[in-house]
Amino acid sequence: MSGNLEAFEGRVGHQFADKALLQQAFVHRSYTNEHRTFPLGDNERLEFLGDAVLELVVTHFLYTSFPNPEGELTTWRSALVRGEMLAKIAQGMAFDEHLLLSQGEARSGGKAKQALLANAFEALIGAIYLDAGYAAANDFIHRELIPELPAILDNKLFIDPKSRLQEITQERFGTTPTYAVLEEEGPDHEKTFTVSVVCRDQELGRGTGSSKQSAQVAAAEIALRALTEN
Amino acid sequence: MSGNLEAFEGRVGHQFADKALLQQAFVHRSYTNEHRTFPLGDNERLEFLGDAVLELVVTHFLYTSFPNPEGELTTWRSALVRGEMLAKIAQGMAFDEHLLLSQGEARSGGKAKQALLANAFEALIGAIYLDAGYAAANDFIHRELIPELPAILDNKLFIDPKSRLQEITQERFGTTPTYAVLEEEGPDHEKTFTVSVVCRDQELGRGTGSSKQSAQVAAAEIALRALTEN
Repeated sequence: MSGNLEAFEGRVGHQFADKALLQQAFVHRSYTNEHRTFPLGDNERLEFLGDAVLELVVTHFLYTSFPNPEGELTTWRSALVRGEMLAKIAQGMAFDEHLLLSQGEARSGGKAKQALLANAFEALIGAIYLDAGYAAANDFIHRELIPELPAILDNKLFIDPKSRLQEITQERFGTTPTYAVLEEEGPDHEKTFTVSVVCRDQELGRGTGSSKQSAQVAAAEIALRALTEN
Repeated sequence: MSGNLEAFEGRVGHQFADKALLQQAFVHRSYTNEHRTFPLGDNERLEFLGDAVLELVVTHFLYTSFPNPEGELTTWRSALVRGEMLAKIAQGMAFDEHLLLSQGEARSGGKAKQALLANAFEALIGAIYLDAGYAAANDFIHRELIPELPAILDNKLFIDPKSRLQEITQERFGTTPTYAVLEEEGPDHEKTFTVSVVCRDQELGRGTGSSKQSAQVAAAEIALRALTEN
C-alpha cells in the first residue's frame, strides 16, 4: 500500500486489517481494463454492497431519530445519499488522489467525475463493512455523512430543484413556472438540450443537459439561485 | 394480542419481546384512518425500515455467495425483493388473516392486495429488526425468502421486461431507458396510467396499466418486441 493510502486510513478513521480492500475501493473499471495484470478487481461489487449498507445506516438513523411519516423520511434519505452529496464528501476527503482510472477517465470532469467519486465513496463503505463489520461502517457514515442532515433540512435541499422552485414561485407570484426547450443540439446519441424556465412571462433561468429533464433541473437551479439571492 | 397472532409468531419463527411491534406490522393506513382511537400507528414507517434491512441482507448474501459482476447481482436482487415475490411469501404465511384494513381496502383484490401484502412483509422485517436486531431479521429472510433464489435463477425470472430492456439499450445505445407518465385517467381508486419509455430521446414504446409500475412493464414489453423484431 502506498504511503498515501496509509495517511488516508487516518482520515477515514479506520485501520484496515485487509489493506487490499481499501485499495480496491479506488479501482475504477477503466483502470483494470487498461491494466490487465493488475492483481485486484474493480470497485463495482464493493459499491453494490456499500450502497445497501449506506441505505440501512441512514434509514435506521432517520427512523430512530425522527417521528415523521415515511414519505418525508424518504425524501430526506434521498437528499443524503444522492450522488452529488457523496461526491462532495469524497472530494473533501481527497478521494481523487487515490482513484485508479484509465488515462481517458482521468481527464473526465463534471458529472462523470462526480459519479466516479460517489461510487468510490460507496465502495469504501463496502470495504469497511467487509473489513470490520456493520458497526465500523455505521461509525464512518455517522462521522462523514450524517452531519450533513441539518443543512439539508434547513435549506430544504430534500425538495428537488423543480419542486422547490414551484413552491417559491407559488408563494411570490401565485403561479407555477413553465419550461420550454430553446435548443436541441448534436447527434441523437449525444444531444444537448437548452431549456428556459419562465414565470409570469419572465425568464428566471436557463439550463443545459443531456436530457430535457436534466436541462430543466439545471434551469431550476439557476432560477433558485437568482430568486434566493435577491 | 389475539390468539391468531400468537400462532403466527410460531410460523414466523420469532417470539416478539414487544408484541405491539408484531401487531403494528399488519396495520394498514386505511385502518387507522377509519379507527381514530386505535392505539398503534400504521405500518408505513416499519416498512420504510424493513425495506432497507431486506436490501442489505439480500445484498450481503449475494455478494458473499456469488463471484458474479454487480450488474447481474442487481437483477437477481430485484427478482428476490420485488413486490410479487414478497406478496407470494406473505400469502403463503397467511398474512391476510392478520391485516387490519378499512372496509373498502378489505374488498380490494389483484395488484392492490399484492401491494398490501408485500408492504406488510417488509414491515414485519422492520418489526423483527427493531425487536431483536439485524441477526434475527437476517435469519427470517434466510428462512423465508432466500430459498426462492434457485428457482429464480433456473427460470431466469431475474430478467424482468424492464431489466431486459435496460440490458439491450445499454448494449446498443450505451444508455438506460427512462419512463414518463403521459396520462393519468379515471378516479383515484380506478386509475389508468399511460407510460412512454424513451431512450436517447426516442420513444421505444407505450403501455397502460393500473399503476405506474405496471404501465412501465407494459411499455417495456412493447419496446422489447420492437427492438428484438428488427
